[in-house]
Parts: sequence; C-alpha cells; structure tokens
Amino acid sequence: MSTQSSDTGVAVAVQPIPETQSASHSETARENAGLDADPAFALHRGGKLEVRSSVPVRNADDLALAYTPGVARVCTAIADNPELVHDYTWVSNVVAVVTDGTAVLGLGDIGPSAAMPVMEGKSLLFKEFGGVESVPICLDCTDVDELVETVVRLAPSFGGINLEDISAPRCFEVEDRLRELLDIPVFHDDQHGTAIVTLAALTNAARLVGKELSELRAVVAGAGASGVAVTRILINAGIGDIAVADSKGMIYEGREGLNPVKAALARDTNRTGYTGSCEEALRGADVFIGLSGGTVTEDAIASMAGDSIVFALSNPTPEIHPEAARRHACVVATGRSDFPNQINNVLAFPGVFRGALDVRAREITENMKVAAATALAGVVGDDVTADYVIPSPFDPRVAPAVTAAVAAQAREDGVARL
Amino acid sequence: MSTQSSDTGVAVAVQPIPETQSASHSETARENAGLDADPAFALHRGGKLEVRSSVPVRNADDLALAYTPGVARVCTAIADNPELVHDYTWVSNVVAVVTDGTAVLGLGDIGPSAAMPVMEGKSLLFKEFGGVESVPICLDCTDVDELVETVVRLAPSFGGINLEDISAPRCFEVEDRLRELLDIPVFHDDQHGTAIVTLAALTNAARLVGKELSELRAVVAGAGASGVAVTRILINAGIGDIAVADSKGMIYEGREGLNPVKAALARDTNRTGYTGSCEEALRGADVFIGLSGGTVTEDAIASMAGDSIVFALSNPTPEIHPEAARRHACVVATGRSDFPNQINNVLAFPGVFRGALDVRAREITENMKVAAATALAGVVGDDVTADYVIPSPFDPRVAPAVTAAVAAQAREDGVARL
Repeated sequence: MSTQSSDTGVAVAVQPIPETQSASHSETARENAGLDADPAFALHRGGKLEVRSSVPVRNADDLALAYTPGVARVCTAIADNPELVHDYTWVSNVVAVVTDGTAVLGLGDIGPSAAMPVMEGKSLLFKEFGGVESVPICLDCTDVDELVETVVRLAPSFGGINLEDISAPRCFEVEDRLRELLDIPVFHDDQHGTAIVTLAALTNAARLVGKELSELRAVVAGAGASGVAVTRILINAGIGDIAVADSKGMIYEGREGLNPVKAALARDTNRTGYTGSCEEALRGADVFIGLSGGTVTEDAIASMAGDSIVFALSNPTPEIHPEAARRHACVVATGRSDFPNQINNVLAFPGVFRGALDVRAREITENMKVAAATALAGVVGDDVTADYVIPSPFDPRVAPAVTAAVAAQAREDGVARL
Repeated sequence: MSTQSSDTGVAVAVQPIPETQSASHSETARENAGLDADPAFALHRGGKLEVRSSVPVRNADDLALAYTPGVARVCTAIADNPELVHDYTWVSNVVAVVTDGTAVLGLGDIGPSAAMPVMEGKSLLFKEFGGVESVPICLDCTDVDELVETVVRLAPSFGGINLEDISAPRCFEVEDRLRELLDIPVFHDDQHGTAIVTLAALTNAARLVGKELSELRAVVAGAGASGVAVTRILINAGIGDIAVADSKGMIYEGREGLNPVKAALARDTNRTGYTGSCEEALRGADVFIGLSGGTVTEDAIASMAGDSIVFALSNPTPEIHPEAARRHACVVATGRSDFPNQINNVLAFPGVFRGALDVRAREITENMKVAAATALAGVVGDDVTADYVIPSPFDPRVAPAVTAAVAAQAREDGVARL
C-alpha cells in the first residue's frame, strides 16, 4: 500500500512552497462573511465537535435509567468501589487535550482561545483515527504550578491527558510533574508524537540505505519540545551518535547559559564534541533532522555522508525545500502532506492512547513509545522505498498496529491494569 | 397537551413509595457482571457520552482544512480578532457541567468520580432537550478559592458554566464569585433550575386556586442551595410572604448562629416573624415547598389554608406522600416522575442555556430566570388542572418557549451580545 509515494513522489523542478499560513494575517481585516469564502473558515463555522448521547433518551423510562433515579444506583456503587468508575462512566475512554496556547503550530504564543481550532482538530483526529473520545481544554494560565494544579484537579474526569502546544522548556516540567502526580497516561504530543513518528521513519530509512541505527550519526536542529524528545527517543532506540543544535549553535557540555534540559542533553549527546554551527556538524553526518523553524543550506546537506537521510520537519516551511534536499539525500521527509514521507503526529497519538486506555495503563513508558514506532515502521515493512518510509495517516492498518504494540508493551512494562 | 395528567393523575390508595436508591448499597458487593443485571448499570457500561466530529474527515483534503495547514488560518484570525472564537470554534455552543461531587442528588458528598454518572446524564439532557453541547467536569478540589480559580482557568474553552451538585453554603460564594469574574453565563442548576420550575408550577397552581401570587403566604422547608434559590425567585416574582425553615426551625432575624446566606434570608423573609417550627408556620399558610430531605406531618398539611398548594420536592422521598398531601391540598407536586406535577430541572436548564448562548449573553439575570418560569408556565396555559400545573419534560414546546423567553429577556436586560 505505497499509495503515498505514487501520489506525490513524481520528481519535478523545484517550485516555491505555497504559503499556507502567513497570508492569513491580512485576511482578518475582511468581514466575517468574507472569511467564509476561505473553505477552511467555512468548515470551522460553529466549530468541529459535538457531544452526543451514546444511550437512548426517548421517554421517561429511558430517563429513569440514564438519569434519576437509576443513575443514583450507579453513583452509589462507584462511591463504594471507586474502580467501577472505569466500567460505568466514559472516563476511561476520554482524554483531555490540554493546552495553554503558548506554542500553537508554528504560530507561537497565541493564547488559549486562538488555540481552540487546533485542539478541536486534535479531538476530531483522536476520534476518527483511534476511536478515543476527547475534549479540548484551553487553559487561561501559563505558570507551571498553575497548569499542573489545574490538570490535577481536572484529572478525575479523564482517562488520559494529552498535552498540546505548550512551549519549551515549561512543557518538560509540566509533563514530568503531571506524570509523577497522576496515575493516568500523560503525553505531550508535540514531544512524543513527533518522536515516535520520526523514529519509525528513520528506522525504515536506515533499512533502505542499508545502515544500522547504531551506526548512524545524526544532527538535530532545534532543542524545543520536539527536538529534545526526538533526540531522547533516538538515544533510547540506540542511535550511534546524535548532536543537537539550537539557535546559538551546537549544544555541548560546558557551553554557557544552558537551561537544565539542554544541560542534560549536552551530557547525553554530541560524543564527537562539536562546538560550532549546525552546518559544521552536518559534514559527513548520516542524518539531519530539522525541528527548528529555521533553514539549512543546500551546501550543508550536500556535505553529508553518502546515502544521507534528511528530515526537514518544520511546518509550514521545511528547513530546506524537499526537492533541493533530494538532489543530495537518499531519503527526504517533511511535515507536509503535499510531499512524500509526511512525519505526521496523527500516525501516533490516536493509537498510543487507544492502546494505553484499552489496558488502563498507569502511564506511557519510554518502551511503549519505542514499541509504537516499531509497529508504525512495520506497517511499511518490505514495501519501503525512498518515498515511502512512513505510512499514510489514512492507511487503516496504522492505528490497530500502534494500539496493539502499545497495549502489549504496557503489559510487559507492568503498567497495565487490565 | 396535558399528557402528564392523563398518564398519572388517577387517584389510587396510598401505597409505599418504591425505594429507588437506598437498595443500591447492597448491590456493590455483587460482581461486576452481576451489577449489569440491573438495567441502569447495563446502560451505563462504558458511559453515556461520545464526542463526534461535526465535519467530514475522509481524506487528506478534509484534513488540510480541519487540521493543518487550514486550521492555522483560523487560529491566526482569532488571535488577531478574539471575537471570532465565537464564530469559528464550538466554544459558544458548549457548556461545562462542573461539580466537586459534594452534594450529588440526595447522596451527599460522594466525590468527583462517583458524581460522573450524574454529570454525564446532565450533558446528555443538555443535548437532547436544548441542542447544547456540554462536557462533564468533575473537579478534585472542594475549597472555594480553588474551585473558582480552576473554573476561571477553564473558561476560555466554554460558552457557559453550569455548576452542579456543589454543597451549600459554598455553592453561593462559588457562583457569586464566578459571575463576577466571568463574562459568560454561570448558573448553579441546583439553585436556579429548581427555582425556575418551582415558580412556573406555583404560578399555574395559584391561577388554578384563584389566588394572586402577591396574596400567597409560603413556607419553605430547607435552606440549602435549592431552598435559598426558590425563596429568592419567589420574592423577585412578588410573593406575598415567605418564610424558610432549616433543620433548627424557622429562620428569623436575630436567630443565633446564622451563616451570612441565612442571615440575609432572615432579613428578606418571614414578615410574620415565626420563630418556632415549620409546622407552626404552616398553620394557615397557602403554600408549602419542601426542599429539605426531611418530612412534614399530614396534620401540618391539614392545618394549612383552604385550597393549599403542597410541593414536596425532596428526592427520592418527598416530605409527605403525595397522595396523603392530596387529601388536604388542592395541588400537589413532587420531584418524582411517577407522580403528577414533576418539578424537574430538565424543564429549565436546556432552554435557559440555549437562549443565553443564542444571544451570547454575558450572564443570566434574575429577570431571565423569571422569564423562563413565565414561559414554562405558559406552556400549560389554559389546560391547567390540579394534576397538570407543569408540562412534561418530553413536551416539545418546552425548550423552544424557554429559549425564546430567555433570549428576549437577555436583550431587554442589555446582557446580550447578539
């Protein structure tokens, strides 16, 4: 099922990447009715979600079961045996999609209200791809303590917490503390969703070029939420060497002014000891992973090792145009749906939560993330080509494969309650 | 459409009221599978709600509009013009059903998890009767400051806040402070839903017995959330005199140990100056309204004025058996669906929020509550009988009538934004 490659893999001359976001600023001057001329606005009118009853409410008899007096028996039973909340409410199947609106897509800190369309979209994807119920929760606070305490107070209503678009480095502490405090899965998708899909794509890309993961030297541009998480999962998966650059250049032990997250990265990465620019580190590297919002020159890509792998994942504008990268690299991936090999989080999060909820997992372990990536890579399997290292989001095998792998690994790791 | 009276208005000998809740305690010892032998448990398995996409997600083109890249244009537009959140997200149509689980039905402080079945039920009723989306939020905190700050942080995600089953007197302060802090409707249904429906029923009952509201002397048993709110709305509607009893007897100015809410009630009620028991105050009274969870004797009801009106609203066990009350009173109402004249909040809250959301009301004013009651009473209209002073929840005229009245009154009160 390599539909993606046949759809989009035709080599053409390098054309400018169409603007998908920056044009919108001028549109806000338009009248409301005018906005709806854009099909994205027309589709968003009134929102994208609805809450429905999954039980009948046709008459007084139905009401006497679903509401009073019948409901009181269920409440009393849960009060007496709290575990029953999992069986007789929707809690075990519903995830909170929580943001503070500080790092929405590539748009930055646009606040909780403007973040809502993305969170609604996420909820819609949870349902469509994973059969997971979810509720968008856009919070009007950005302080780490306040975010943590608010989510803890909300937690009895949900079976899992999907953190979304919370800016780095706050996102690391928010997630760490919530994982500590709650006994339900907490998963910052910007970090781990991207990490899982990137590892899956890299696994297949490495296989294609005939290199072991343990032989690869990778350079990651970007030390935000996704850059850090991608680096961490690649270390866990056994990558040969990996070094990370931020806007000031390579991160290395002893560099001044590193925050605690980057200082930890410095300890665990960059064994070669690069101290200069990202471009310098790319010379002879096997893998480039761009998660920076910046750019990388075609010369730098050309200086990489033979059979190089380039993941230019910034959205909407990749670090290098994929067709330019493809002149030098063997495998190129982006975050965009209009080029081959889209690294799209929707390949991961619906199945990850579906699998975690199915076995009532207490948490999502590092092993569960690697298992998700392995399963995702396995969907491509022997059909792997340079333009097909990762499946399409619409491949119906994806969510079941990820779900099964995550659930099995949860049991193996002893975090499953079912 | 007096279906309710013809369904249930047949006079029969007084029979014991069936136990609907207390039997459930013993059931929790049963195995889970055994629980499902009870149709209420079977219906609740897996919960009662689902979240669905209201837009298509069939292919990559759909995804490019509902999610990236299309969604980014909508986010940017909202960031530039925050008012657009009402047009292009579901926020304006979704209500948070918020509880801390401290006063759930008649079950008391059973905590947030055990409260979830009721909150799911409420969400289901919001949708079925008012077309209002809603999300149950059961909070793991009971401190007033924490409840208020948590709801304020959640507020950008919702177009209204329906507080539910929060114990008195905390519920009064929580609601007052949230109304002050938020510019969306905040409505504690245990207070105002009950108040609206009670006023509607009393309006029709008074009409039936040929008395003006301003001539009535009423005694309310119970000074909790609903007792206080019912008293307040009846004062606003112009009732002649009203006096309130709590577990220590009548509330009067100068009684020791009154909390601030009861002290305010003492100032505004009980013009006759009753200082003894509820029974004593009932002598010669026109109206009894029970919201106490306690009992009232048949002798006390017999001592009321001619053509008396008895609303014995405690659930599941009314303060007096309705058939016993009916031997002395002209009109009897309860909170139960198996007797005539059910005072059921579902007659109010779906239409109240539908109307408020439709005009994007900043708040729900006292006038809007009285307008809702007037509209609800008007559905019965000239069909009023002793067994039909309030319509059935399934009467399709109810929600539209309440919606229209609330929306019109919001405009008149200057709190509508549309």
